[in-house]
Parts: sequence; C-alpha cells; structure tokens
Amino acid sequence: MKRGLLIVLSGPSGVGKGTVCSVLRRKVPDLVYSVSATTRKPRKGEIDGVNYFFKSREQFQEMIDSDALLEYAEYVGNYYGTPRDFVEKTLESGKDIILEIEVQGALKVKEKFPEGVFIFLMPPSLDELKQRIEGRGTESKDAIDHRMSVAIEEIGLLRHYDYAVTNDDIEAACHRIQCIVVAEHCRRERVMGDFAAMQHASTKKA
Amino acid sequence: MKRGLLIVLSGPSGVGKGTVCSVLRRKVPDLVYSVSATTRKPRKGEIDGVNYFFKSREQFQEMIDSDALLEYAEYVGNYYGTPRDFVEKTLESGKDIILEIEVQGALKVKEKFPEGVFIFLMPPSLDELKQRIEGRGTESKDAIDHRMSVAIEEIGLLRHYDYAVTNDDIEAACHRIQCIVVAEHCRRERVMGDFAAMQHASTKKA
Repeated sequence: MKRGLLIVLSGPSGVGKGTVCSVLRRKVPDLVYSVSATTRKPRKGEIDGVNYFFKSREQFQEMIDSDALLEYAEYVGNYYGTPRDFVEKTLESGKDIILEIEVQGALKVKEKFPEGVFIFLMPPSLDELKQRIEGRGTESKDAIDHRMSVAIEEIGLLRHYDYAVTNDDIEAACHRIQCIVVAEHCRRERVMGDFAAMQHASTKKA
Repeated sequence: MKRGLLIVLSGPSGVGKGTVCSVLRRKVPDLVYSVSATTRKPRKGEIDGVNYFFKSREQFQEMIDSDALLEYAEYVGNYYGTPRDFVEKTLESGKDIILEIEVQGALKVKEKFPEGVFIFLMPPSLDELKQRIEGRGTESKDAIDHRMSVAIEEIGLLRHYDYAVTNDDIEAACHRIQCIVVAEHCRRERVMGDFAAMQHASTKKA
C-alpha cells in the first residue's frame, strides 16, 4: 500500500484556514481531516471531536507526557496539538490527510515529516487580514492588536513552506489547494518507484 | 510584468503527447502552445505553422547556424527544434507557454531553463505503448521495433523530470497537467517576491 500524502495547511491567525478547510472537506470527501486537540474554549457552533478535541490543561499535559501528540504549541495563551496516531494510521492506509494548524505547529511537523506538503494560506493584504480578525467580534482591541503583530511575524515564516495560496476567494483558494494535491501525487520523486518495475521489465525485454 | 511559466511536456515516442497537447489547447486557451520546427514530412491532416513549421534540412541548418533554436535534436532521422524567439517573448509577456517536445530536446531546454516545469507523459504500460505505436499504421515492423527500443531508453530519463503524468485517459491526463500548472504558480519560490512587499510594509507598521 502506497502511503498517503500529508498536507499541512497553515498561515497567519485570521487568514481563514478553518473556513477553507471546511469547504475543502465538503468538496473532497476522500481527503481525511485531522482533528486537533486544544485547550482553547469552544467558539459558538464548534463541536467537540469535529472542529477540535477540547481538552483541559491537565488532559493536554497528559497527552504531551505520553508522547501522543505529533506537535503542540502554545498560542495566545492556549495549547493546540495534533494527535499522532490518527495521522500515522491514515497515511499508512494510503489516504491523504490534511492538517490545519498554526504556524508554529506546522514547522514542528515539518521536522518530523519533511516529505509533507506545506501550504501557507496568505491574506490578500494586511488590511484585509485586520478586517477579518475584527469581524469575528470575539476579541478586545488589545487582543486584536496582539493577533495582528503575531500574524505579521508568522507571514515571515512563509519561507519554510512549499506553496503560498492567497485566500482572496474561498472557492478559488480551495481549487488551488486541490490542484496542489493532484500535482504532488504526480511529482517524479513520489512516483519513481511505480515506474521502476516498468523500466526494469523493459530492460530485460530489450 | 511577472514572467510566465515554461511548461515542457515530453515522454516516449507514441505516448500521446500531441493528442494531450491539442486537448489542453482547447481546454486552456490562455496557455500558449509553442510550435516546433521539423524536417519530418507532414502526416495526414497536419498543417504547417499549426502542428509544426515544416522545413527542409537546408532551412533547418540555417536556423541552427543563426542560433534561432532553443534546442534541436535529430530523432528517427529527422530534425526537431524549438524557435527561441517565440518562447522568450511569450514568457516576457507574462503568459505561460507549453512545449511539446521529444525527450532529448526537453533535456536541452532544461539546461537553459532550469526554472521550467518538466512533465513526463508515461504510458500506462509498455504493451499499451506498443499498441499505440502500431495503431498509427504509418510504420513498418522494423520502424516500430526501433521506436519501442528508443521509447524504453527514453523512459529511463524520467529521473530528470519534475512530474510524471500517466496517460491512461486523455481527459484525466489533461486535468493533472492543468493542476500542475496551477500548483506551480503557487510554489513558494515563485511567489516569494509578491509577498516581500507585504512583509516589508508590515515590519515598518509593527
């Protein structure tokens, strides 16, 4: 069984990773969606086990201690992490899995999975990003300013990624990500093995 | 003006490069199609200036001598080459251009344009390839055997390419190539410059 692709979708806070991921999820049912664990409080409409596994700090610490997380990071006062087992099992079953994670977490995953496909979702502009963060209406001005300065630092980490996808339009961004997945399946280094047998057989025939 | 992408579509003789290219041409009118020069005789239905620029050996030699070809190669007794001017002007205008060329020519283009996107079209199997070559009905058994042994050598050159696309179905192969073009436009090293200004402006604001 050929291993699936690990797709990591990251980008600055507020860029719309969650929305893009949920649209992708509907459009590409074959793509498995990794559910993160977090100590952040659920936002309105978020469901435990679907959007996140919501954990207390004590529960999260236990997962860290038992090495049950592929990566974890503290971000704006909360922990976020990726349960390791689910990712490994999905890849081994030959399915692609997408992780939607914060920039810090993505770079830790890259250390463990350099063969992953790292996609950075970019805002069309910083003004647009600020409007989106303000638009949530869930945070104070100080929290918004803090998020913006964190986001600006995060954009500087684009250099560690394979792809940059501008989130100017959700459908367009999803289409680009779908194309990236198709293209990555065609990358020579990923398929070389499939063709080695053909080349070998042909050399014997010739 | 941002330069366009140079897409090079190659693969063994008989794999269906021409058919795939003509379908792509209809489906993606924005993609400019490079017309090769050749000394090969026109096949039935082929039009000068559309499928190829058909040249005498003397005319072709003149193009070589005046460095008017990006690459040229002799293949099964005929010259094939890519007029340089048209490719350069298209890229400078910001449009993507696709070259459909033989394996030898593609590797020469790679020396001059390492930033190009090199796609190798693969047959689903060698038996399938042989059937396709025989199916043309234009060649003798010796010519077919020669083509097969050349094709087998050519498949060994896959290692120099960025992508391998199996031509199991023309529509599917075209879709994969379209996805590769979209994905390549999102590659971080190609778009890094676009975002440098945003990062620079943001650093000043912060």
